[in-house]
Amino acid sequence: MTPARGDHDARRADVSRAVWRVLAERGFEGLTLRAVAAEMGASTGLLTHYFPSKRALLKHALDVLDRQSAERPRPAEERAGGAVGLAMLRAVLLDILPLTPQSAAGNRIWVSSWDVALADPDLAAEHAERYRAARRRMTGHVEDARRLGELPAGRPAEDVAAAAQSFVLGLVVQALFAPAEFPAERQTALLDAYLAGIAAA
Amino acid sequence: MTPARGDHDARRADVSRAVWRVLAERGFEGLTLRAVAAEMGASTGLLTHYFPSKRALLKHALDVLDRQSAERPRPAEERAGGAVGLAMLRAVLLDILPLTPQSAAGNRIWVSSWDVALADPDLAAEHAERYRAARRRMTGHVEDARRLGELPAGRPAEDVAAAAQSFVLGLVVQALFAPAEFPAERQTALLDAYLAGIAAA
Repeated sequence: MTPARGDHDARRADVSRAVWRVLAERGFEGLTLRAVAAEMGASTGLLTHYFPSKRALLKHALDVLDRQSAERPRPAEERAGGAVGLAMLRAVLLDILPLTPQSAAGNRIWVSSWDVALADPDLAAEHAERYRAARRRMTGHVEDARRLGELPAGRPAEDVAAAAQSFVLGLVVQALFAPAEFPAERQTALLDAYLAGIAAA
Repeated sequence: MTPARGDHDARRADVSRAVWRVLAERGFEGLTLRAVAAEMGASTGLLTHYFPSKRALLKHALDVLDRQSAERPRPAEERAGGAVGLAMLRAVLLDILPLTPQSAAGNRIWVSSWDVALADPDLAAEHAERYRAARRRMTGHVEDARRLGELPAGRPAEDVAAAAQSFVLGLVVQALFAPAEFPAERQTALLDAYLAGIAAA
């Protein structure tokens, strides 16, 4: 049965929430029409009305992930207020780390999305552009930090940003696999030691 | 038809190679009995003789990945010969990076395996133990480097090792998504700048 027009948007929001819950629990490997339907208490037939194929479901899941990421809380950036330079670079990197259960869930879905994205040239290009955009923003913070004398000159600012992004992404992966070994305090301390290293180099 | 005993081992090796090729091309998302059968030019029925379930196929794929990783070439370690301390830490980290197409293929499969592993507590625990063992080995190299006066004392050696592992894993991810931006020379330069940073800190 095709839902009435007014119901359609509300139902899409229901679908997005169900997709998010399935991803948080089972990753992209577990994302099937059947799993999303079960999560909603709906029929698989209703779901195929929205997603005629597995690829359509994956695309929607990545859109949901994008939207959730854009809207996710950024407590460190908020605390940093209008700070610039190293303080803002630190805040941006801190807000990526899985320091809270909510951020761990979001990160777990991002990490999980790499499998799907690497297998599909279009999706890989979209992911690459997301990381490129993040590096561009970080590069701006590195340049600000240099103007303020907080970071030494010498290496290209792009390299400092790419290195910082690498460090944080790898720490995300380690913390997701071994949360007991990487509690929030240790993640923060590792990041601070990293930043102290690039400030001293 | 059940294969004869002598054929069995040869056939398992064929299956492992086909699993590896499917993973390299399509990741875990694309790993299905049908895909492996097609890669071998065999029937799906024959494959179900070896893998009664998707989970059995995933477990085998992770075993293949483990074996391939244990046997993968380690050119930097070989060049470093019997070196100890910072030179060996650098070699170990270099050998993780996707500096060659072969290493990129292996890394791509590792990154892809994180989705499956994070969704299954047993597999997650196995992955966590693999990374823990790698950090232990790196911690030994950090301790050697300190004895040699190549790295400063102060922070726990475990933290220095965990940070180095994070940096390299994140660089792997960035290089897989944006190989043109992260050619082998840039990856190596980023690692060397990282090591210079921890030596100076």
